Amino acid sequence: MSHTLVPSDRVEHVNVYGRNGTKLGSIERLMLDKLTGTVAYAVIKTGGMLSTHHHYPIKWSALKYDPERLAYEAEATLEELQTGPCEFDGDEFDWGDRSRSYTHPNYWAV
Amino acid sequence: MSHTLVPSDRVEHVNVYGRNGTKLGSIERLMLDKLTGTVAYAVIKTGGMLSTHHHYPIKWSALKYDPERLAYEAEATLEELQTGPCEFDGDEFDWGDRSRSYTHPNYWAV
Repeated sequence: MSHTLVPSDRVEHVNVYGRNGTKLGSIERLMLDKLTGTVAYAVIKTGGMLSTHHHYPIKWSALKYDPERLAYEAEATLEELQTGPCEFDGDEFDWGDRSRSYTHPNYWAV
Repeated sequence: MSHTLVPSDRVEHVNVYGRNGTKLGSIERLMLDKLTGTVAYAVIKTGGMLSTHHHYPIKWSALKYDPERLAYEAEATLEELQTGPCEFDGDEFDWGDRSRSYTHPNYWAV
């Protein structure tokens, strides 16, 4: 039976591929708006080089699940994500700061 | 700084107390609407007797985080939840079936 719902813990840790087929990483977590319970964006954690990782926000509507690959396909490439906000491991990036004036098309959908 | 966002993996496994102060259990997962990325409901897993658990849906707006207890307070009691849908461990309950005609006030907020 086809579902319209998906459990949060079945989204987390799923691999994400870019529009061009390149693996971007995996979904680290979802950032939820407390008031509305809407996903503001997902965080993609890249595979990482030398044990470091990049963390990129991507809006929910840019992610489409591919049941054959058991992975999400993102309507973006790594190059496009790199033009938006990014966090490194250990950064004290304030992911909930709405006052940031990022206008990246794949960031913040609430 | 006050945030308007909360990470999904900081919601999961957090304890939930009822309106009357009784512990209901913990948040097992969030059920998200695939299309809109909105939380349809959270699933509360009860503490369980004889190693069995009940799983109750509760809408997001009925959960309020209490930073002093590091727990959610639900606008419902266990008795109220028990009047709505419930799953036991191993049940093949279809949590995404919108055709079910539950009209419970704490179920399904999308």
